Amino acid sequence: MESLYVIKIGGNIIDDDALLSVFLKKFVAIKSKKILIHGGGKLATRMAEKLGIPQQLIDGRRITDVETLKIVTMVYAGYINKHIVAELQSLKCNSIGISGPDGNSILAHKRENAPIDYGFAGDIDRVNADWFRQLLDSGICIVVSSITHDGNNQLLNTNADTIAQEIAKAMSTFFEVSLVYSFEKPGVMQDVGNENSVINKLHPDYYKKLKETKKIFSGMIPKLDNAFKAIDSGVNKVIIGKGEELDLLISGKAGTTISHE
Amino acid sequence: MESLYVIKIGGNIIDDDALLSVFLKKFVAIKSKKILIHGGGKLATRMAEKLGIPQQLIDGRRITDVETLKIVTMVYAGYINKHIVAELQSLKCNSIGISGPDGNSILAHKRENAPIDYGFAGDIDRVNADWFRQLLDSGICIVVSSITHDGNNQLLNTNADTIAQEIAKAMSTFFEVSLVYSFEKPGVMQDVGNENSVINKLHPDYYKKLKETKKIFSGMIPKLDNAFKAIDSGVNKVIIGKGEELDLLISGKAGTTISHE
Repeated sequence: MESLYVIKIGGNIIDDDALLSVFLKKFVAIKSKKILIHGGGKLATRMAEKLGIPQQLIDGRRITDVETLKIVTMVYAGYINKHIVAELQSLKCNSIGISGPDGNSILAHKRENAPIDYGFAGDIDRVNADWFRQLLDSGICIVVSSITHDGNNQLLNTNADTIAQEIAKAMSTFFEVSLVYSFEKPGVMQDVGNENSVINKLHPDYYKKLKETKKIFSGMIPKLDNAFKAIDSGVNKVIIGKGEELDLLISGKAGTTISHE
Repeated sequence: MESLYVIKIGGNIIDDDALLSVFLKKFVAIKSKKILIHGGGKLATRMAEKLGIPQQLIDGRRITDVETLKIVTMVYAGYINKHIVAELQSLKCNSIGISGPDGNSILAHKRENAPIDYGFAGDIDRVNADWFRQLLDSGICIVVSSITHDGNNQLLNTNADTIAQEIAKAMSTFFEVSLVYSFEKPGVMQDVGNENSVINKLHPDYYKKLKETKKIFSGMIPKLDNAFKAIDSGVNKVIIGKGEELDLLISGKAGTTISHE
């Protein structure tokens, strides 16, 4: 099967124009088909501050009231999405920036009856994999913002990690998918204080052993559990590391690669 | 040739959710292929006010400094574009919202050496008609915001009337194009104070005569000169009137239809 890279970039890259440029150059250099997913970093928070709209984050997730939904739609789907696409075009990488309502690409529903009311937060129901494939087959890269919709004229703020995972899973019907999570750390570390303790390869048995012997940072466990769910759902591998080292992540020379192999 | 409607909506519709809904229902009812173009109405001005960024408009055109460019990108390409697409999806009209950098759809350059410095204002160089056709042929409606790019990583604020006209002209290679300008008036009026004086049909000879005898509101002349240029460049007809009467505009029962016939 043809390979596809589904790459989620974190706030540290979005918030830093120079780092974003380094990342995008390496992104463009990937010869395979590719999808980029982004949220909004700290820009939405700064915009909310300027507009005097108080923001509340619980476990890193934003409580999205009506005014905050406006802000994240403006910042993620507008400002950041179009800036990334304009920069990719300048690097001669033909791209399209989309959000959930575009082409009905990501359908979600408002999270209800949760212990915490996250407001207009979306849980994903369906990824329009056929349309993603159609776009990719036309030779275009896809840049996805973390704004989805419910099909009934409601936009929803949705976790970008989850969007990346659902797209990766849905696309694995058609492609050999590598899912890359770019964040501020060099990978999954045995010792959270030591950047030289990155675990280069992680397969299910080894992960089980590390968890049992508590040799893994507990804060990484939900992320890793999700990564293992992804490779159990058809995704070929999940790679975690620094986006600015994207080339090394893909060649396996940096970061943590999670797979069955 | 197959027909295509290229429809530009004005600020009065964008600023009024109820009016926008009336318009979008009528838009969806059009059986032909269609492209919708929008700017940002007064939303960008209000957002700038809230952010304390002074706005300057000359002849209705916004001076776009760096901060204003951020605002219009957020408001036009983000908030308004995604809201329109979400509403169209809820009306079962599959749509995609794009801006100039997406698919390299509208390439422009920064206006230089003009008597007035409009800042990051774009003048259009090229419409990617092939890509517009490809999207339309896949059965999707296109919603275009008035943000373009220069191919060198610069977004540009661009007049939505001009975008509509350039798209209409470019698409007339493939389609029989009707270009609809929706604004707050019922059409071109002989007597600007009398909404019952709408000129229903306007062809070049009649227009020439009206201009010579000064029986046309001078403020409309630049708009009409452009409309006549459009029909001289392959566009089948230009229709001017109220967007909320879109069905009547298209059937010729309201508004002003400008054509060679």
